Order: sequence, then structure tokens, then C-alpha cells
Amino acid sequence: MNRTKLTPLDAAFVQLESPGVPMHVAGLMIFEPPAKGGADFVRTLVSDWRKETRIAAPWNQKLESPSRWQLAPCLKTCQDPDLEYHLRHLVLPKPGGQVELGQLVARLHSQPMDMRKLLWECYVIEGLAENRFAIYMKFHHSIVDGISASVLLMKGLSDSAKDRKTSPFWIQTAPEKPFQPASFKMPSVPAMLGAANNVLKLFGRSDSLTTLRSAPRTPLNGPIGAQRRFATQNFDMTRLKATAKTAGVSLNDVVLCLVGGTLRKYLQGITALPTESLTAAVPMSLRAEGDLSPGNSVGMIYSIIGTNVADPVLRLKKISQATNVAKQQVLGLEPEMRVPYSIASFAPAIARMLTGVSGKKKPMFNAVVSNVPGGRDDKYLRGARLLHCYPANIVFPGMATSFTCYSHAGTLNVGITACRDTVPSMQKLALGMEEALCELEHGLGLEAHANPRSLDVVEAAL
Amino acid sequence: MNRTKLTPLDAAFVQLESPGVPMHVAGLMIFEPPAKGGADFVRTLVSDWRKETRIAAPWNQKLESPSRWQLAPCLKTCQDPDLEYHLRHLVLPKPGGQVELGQLVARLHSQPMDMRKLLWECYVIEGLAENRFAIYMKFHHSIVDGISASVLLMKGLSDSAKDRKTSPFWIQTAPEKPFQPASFKMPSVPAMLGAANNVLKLFGRSDSLTTLRSAPRTPLNGPIGAQRRFATQNFDMTRLKATAKTAGVSLNDVVLCLVGGTLRKYLQGITALPTESLTAAVPMSLRAEGDLSPGNSVGMIYSIIGTNVADPVLRLKKISQATNVAKQQVLGLEPEMRVPYSIASFAPAIARMLTGVSGKKKPMFNAVVSNVPGGRDDKYLRGARLLHCYPANIVFPGMATSFTCYSHAGTLNVGITACRDTVPSMQKLALGMEEALCELEHGLGLEAHANPRSLDVVEAAL
Repeated sequence: MNRTKLTPLDAAFVQLESPGVPMHVAGLMIFEPPAKGGADFVRTLVSDWRKETRIAAPWNQKLESPSRWQLAPCLKTCQDPDLEYHLRHLVLPKPGGQVELGQLVARLHSQPMDMRKLLWECYVIEGLAENRFAIYMKFHHSIVDGISASVLLMKGLSDSAKDRKTSPFWIQTAPEKPFQPASFKMPSVPAMLGAANNVLKLFGRSDSLTTLRSAPRTPLNGPIGAQRRFATQNFDMTRLKATAKTAGVSLNDVVLCLVGGTLRKYLQGITALPTESLTAAVPMSLRAEGDLSPGNSVGMIYSIIGTNVADPVLRLKKISQATNVAKQQVLGLEPEMRVPYSIASFAPAIARMLTGVSGKKKPMFNAVVSNVPGGRDDKYLRGARLLHCYPANIVFPGMATSFTCYSHAGTLNVGITACRDTVPSMQKLALGMEEALCELEHGLGLEAHANPRSLDVVEAAL
Repeated sequence: MNRTKLTPLDAAFVQLESPGVPMHVAGLMIFEPPAKGGADFVRTLVSDWRKETRIAAPWNQKLESPSRWQLAPCLKTCQDPDLEYHLRHLVLPKPGGQVELGQLVARLHSQPMDMRKLLWECYVIEGLAENRFAIYMKFHHSIVDGISASVLLMKGLSDSAKDRKTSPFWIQTAPEKPFQPASFKMPSVPAMLGAANNVLKLFGRSDSLTTLRSAPRTPLNGPIGAQRRFATQNFDMTRLKATAKTAGVSLNDVVLCLVGGTLRKYLQGITALPTESLTAAVPMSLRAEGDLSPGNSVGMIYSIIGTNVADPVLRLKKISQATNVAKQQVLGLEPEMRVPYSIASFAPAIARMLTGVSGKKKPMFNAVVSNVPGGRDDKYLRGARLLHCYPANIVFPGMATSFTCYSHAGTLNVGITACRDTVPSMQKLALGMEEALCELEHGLGLEAHANPRSLDVVEAAL
């Protein structure tokens, strides 16, 4: 039997799993069936996939023991996977619009995974308006980070609309970890702690705009309930790139500025806007070139998001200054410092969650904003074109809302995950990002031309 | 704010709740819409119900704190219930047959309730074959037992097919507890413990065929997983009554005999039939005449089910002898002994679950078999006739399968709930009950005429 020890960061997501704070991520993919797909397109897809008996790693791996207190959790290869459990066929009630889809996805994302089963679930959802269908694909964070999840999903799609025989996702093998030089292998625990200590000192440097002590209290940073909401937004990539180019900043800075803008309005609306800026934790890939293997290889940088700045252009400038300092800190790291950095950057949040103080003390940051780069080209599932892929993320006590972006075929798809009780009117966050972009474009002297699809908001809140 | 302390037995179901062993029960109701119901019958029903803002007790009550360790949990009236959360509209994929319905219901029944919300969930499910629809209604056992759950559901239906304006279930108020004589009020803890001790001595009397020490080990009585399966079966009441009358036993004895027969064959099939008889815990209502109030008012009797007896008529005779002794013990109790009896009869199982030894030690009983009496007359929801109402019950470590019956309009509806991993081929249990009845009828010289609907088996296992 194949048996793999989880890395410390992968293992942390097993240890953090709890009934009210599950540690799974998901992708919501929206497909447009081929013109001559037939009325039974989705039913045939599910029925063909059910017949498939093969399964590849990491799809066939389950936890040796689901206990969160196990110090070194292991994955073992499952000999007899219960695929009927993992592949589920659902139908939306009519009219199959964004309200119905949003309600369903919010419920699916609220349900904890059974940690004794394989660590993924695939929901094929038919009945969307305009004859579309969706796939909601759930992974436990202990086996994937954003990059490896998207690699696994995109491997299951085809570059050609003519390829009508795409195999199920779970046949696709994950890329292996590339050859690692000896100096890059997992350091010992004392070495990691020492390195982590150095990294933490780095965070606290007085010239850094992004220390871990700068997050103000807001209603988004208290205790949370077990239920989730999910909303989506999408932007034309050309629009975002033109904005970034004109302002001389990165595309990630523009996204942070849109999040800052929408959170500023949202908190103003409930008269809870702090005088100092909210901060965001921004996961940054620490993968070596070409490493698309499963598991987590990510570190956090922390940045202000300018919620205290009314002028969108000035907000963007301040954000860009902050992220440049943080990025230089990370880019300056020696390769062998990357794993300790990753652990150190997560460690304070993990320690807070494990000790139960999250959501009770002053927050370390106010929101997570992450961006997973996807591909430029169209992708197809048996001829059905992938229109959008929206990531659904984790939220936890002290951090009730998370913005996750995925770029695909010329659009930036934003999935906003939040605690149902903390963020009851979540549509405002999705719509607010579009407003913030219009304001930014206007401030930069660009012609603001709102994307009509930006009103295509999946929203569970009524 | 209205605040009610839970009775000790109601509170036990809060304290026993855990992620892998949730303590909810449910009813799966199958409806046939009126001939001229229109294509939008179900959609209009859901949309009308969503507009309703009123809500009555016990539907509007939530736990003051969802902690399982609270010694005396309280219910409080919720001022602002999140009804969009509690009413859910689902659609079955085509062909909407028993396989699709069984898979969906099994998944719904596997999902733990959010103990911070109101303690019920209502799923309206359309897309069943023959234009039917279903309602899966979930309650936490801390607010209802079988009788009070069925009373609440049936109050939401109408006696007339012409009544097209039935209000949602959660408008129906639960009957109040009838006037209790002073001697019947809740006794003090020491008084209860003393009485419980006397009751436990009663269980151990040498002339009783049904002591708590008689259950053999079987594969159905080990640890269980978090996922469930659900299967159904139904019988013509006239058939069961004729069988009971010919044999001179009660209808409950016949049901126990069918369970014994099907478990005998199932265990033989996996070469795991013990030489001594399996035993069943049989909940028995301890309600005073006319008491249909919410909460739990039930005690357990224990009976052999004759799995070691090949001859169905002899099996039935032995079961009847055993249940007669057990029933006399309970019927002989003074009214003021009923609450202590109820607690004492549950106490050993509850103590085992709370201490985590359930499923590890020799079982106290092998299955739960319960029968909730319903009504004789047809019931309607806006003109849609209720065809069947199948109860879905709790299973727990040491007791992986539960048979629950509900009689309605001339049929006995059996819902079989089981642990997904322990009972992978559950259809056999449902079909086995029909075979057992045919054998029994044959043995008694009755003409066996299998109900064609008895093959209408909701089954999640493929």
C-alpha cells in the first residue's frame, strides 16, 4: 500500500478541519454545451463517467486516520473507492438562474467533507438557464492549493472543441514534483523554527508597510457561523490590464484596489468603516519553476487595501507601494528559506485557529485576496466550452470573507466566499467591485465601459 | 424572550449530537399532484411558502447554546428566522426514479444539522417519475419523537382534496401538553435515579425473555461511518392485519417477525448469522391519553426477533411471547413511574454513546424497530394526495440499522436507515421483508399475494 506523509502545511489543513470551519476549497465551472449537444448531454456525461473504474493519484488517496490531532497525517492509496459517493448529479429548479445556482452552491460549500472518504467531491449540475450546466468540484485543502487544484481541473478539459471523449477528472494524474536540489529538501523542525523566527522579524521591520499588527477590528472579523454564502463577479482581462498599465502597477494591485473599494462602501453602509486601512492576506506561490504538483506551496504576504482612502487612484498607489515592499521581502528569500517562510507566514493564523482565539482577539488581517493564474485559451469538456471558473475558498473565525480570482480565456473570475450570518447582503460585494473598477477607470482618465456580464452575479442571499 | 428548559430525554439528543452521529429524524412524503395541478404546481407551492412570514412553536425555537456539554439545554424563541435557509427546493435528475430519489435522500439524511439554526429543514423535491413530488422534512430528535413529528406533519395537510390553500408546516402550532396531575410532574433527580434503579431491576428479572444482556455480536453492531443509506418498503395494512389475526398476535409482532426474517437472510448471506437470536429495541409511547405535544415521551422495550428460528410461524410465536412479557412490565407501571422508566430504558445506551464505548463492546440490542401510528384517512397538500410517508431514523455506533414504520391510509410504510459502509447492499433488507411476509402467510395457510408496490424500493445503493 502506497503511503505518503503530508508536508507540515498540507497537514495543517487536516488539523484545522472542524465542523463549523471546514477546510475545503472548490471550483464552480460554468459550461456552454456544443450546439448539437442533444438534450441528454449532461445525463450521458454523468452516465459515462459512472462507468469509469480507473482512478489516479491524488484522486485515489485518503487519510490514514481522520483525526485532527494526529501529528503527522498520512495519505494512503484507496483500493476500492466508492465513486457513486464522490460523483453526484444535481438539477437546478427553474428558472435555473443565478439565484438558484447561488443558493445551491452556497449549501454545497457549507457542507463539511467526510474526512474518512477520498478528499474530493464532484457535483454535475444541470438545469441552468440558456441550456448551460455547471460542475462544482470540491477538494480538501490538505491535498491541493489554488494552483494544483486548477492544474488538476484543467488537465481534465481539452484544448479542442472537437474532442468529444474527455475522461473524468479523476483519471488525470497530477504532475509529479520536479527534481529538487538536495538543499531544497524538507528542513528539520528546529531549522524551520529558526528560519520562521527570522522571517517573522522580517514582517515586523519598521520600513514595511505591511506588518502583522496593522489590521483594525471590523464586523467581518469576529466569530463566524457554520454556513456560507457565495457570490461571483467577472471582468474583462483587457480592461484590468489597461487600468494596471495606465497606473503603472500590477494587475494584482488593481484587484486589491477593487476589494478595498467594495469593502469601503460595504462597511460605510453598515457604519462600521475603521479610520485605518483594512489589510489583506495575499497568498503568493512559492513553487519552483514548472512545479504543478499537488499539495500546498504557498506563502502569505500582507498588504493594506486602502479602505481609508476615498480617491481610487490614490488608493491604488498606496496599495502598490505596500505590495512592492512585501514582494521584495519574499523574492529576496533564498530557495531554502521558502518552506520556512511559507510555514512562518501561516503559523500565526494557524496557531490562533488551533487555540480557538481566532475571531476573539484583534484580527491579524481583514480578508484573504488571492489570485490563481489560469490559461489564455478556451477549454472544452466534450465540446462544451468552459465559460467561467469561479473559486470558492475557506473562511474562518476572524476572517468571514475571502476573495479568490482565477483568470481564464481573457476574463478574471472572482469567487467571493463569506460566512452566511456575518455577510447577509453579499451581492453588494460583487457589485461593488464593478463600481470600484468604474471609479478607478474614471480617475485614471480611461473610458469606463462596464462589462454586461459583470451583472452575472451568483448570489445566495435574497 | 420565551425560554424553555428541555426535559432530560429531549436534552439527551442535544448532548449525543456529534458530526459522525447526528441525532435527527425525518419523514419522506411522496405526493401525487391533482389531475389539473398544472406544470408549475411545485414551483408555485415553494414560491407561496417563501412569502409566508408567520412561524409558530416549536418551529421557531432554537437552542440557546449549541454546546453538547451544557447540562440543561434551553430552547428560545427566534425572533428573525432565516426561512430561506430552512425551506429548500430541489429537483431530481431524470428519470426521477427510486434510485435517484434514494441517492438524494441518503445524502440529505447524512448531513448533520446546524445546531445554531432552527431545528428543522424542509426539502421540496420535484422531478419524480409519474409527475410526483416529495417532501423530505428533517427534525432534530431533541424537539420531536416519532409521534409528535407525525402530528406536526399531518397538521400541515388537509383532509380534503378540495382545500387548495394549505399553509406551510411551520404555521401549524403543536398541541400543548395536556393538563398533568400534580403527581405526574417532572420528578427530582434523586427520585428519578431511584425509580430508574427499580426499573433496571425489572429488566433483569429471570422470567423476562428480554433482558438487556441478550444481544449477540453481528457485523451490524460495530463502529459506523458518517454516511447513511435509506431504503423503503410498504405493505397493505389488510394483509398485515389478516396475518396478525390468524396468528393471534399483535401487528407489531408481525413487523418484528418480518425484520427478524430479513435480518436472518441478510446475515446468512454474509455468513454472519449468530446462533442466538438478535434482539430489537422497540420504542413504546408513554404519552398520556391525548398528549400530542412536541418533545420525547417514549420508553424502550427489548425483544428477541427470532433470527435463529427458520420457521416463520414459530418465530412469530416466540416474538409474541417475548413482547407480551415486556409490555406487561411497562403497562404495569404507575403513571409517575413512566418518566423514570423512559429515562432508565434509554440510559444505558445513552451512557455508552457519551462515553464512546458504543460499537466497541458487546451490543445491548441489534436493531431499533419502531412503529408510529398514523391515520386511516387520505391527506392532501393543496389537492396533492399523500401516497406514502416513510420515516428516516437515527443510527449510531453499535446499531448500524434502524427499521421505522408509519401507518397511513391503509398502508404500512417502512423506512430503513443504515450506515452506508456497514450495510452496502441494503436493497436486500427491503426486499427481504416482503419475502418474509410471503413465507409467514404461507406458513399460516393464508394466500400470499405480494403487493406490486412492495417493489417500490427507494434505494441509494447501486
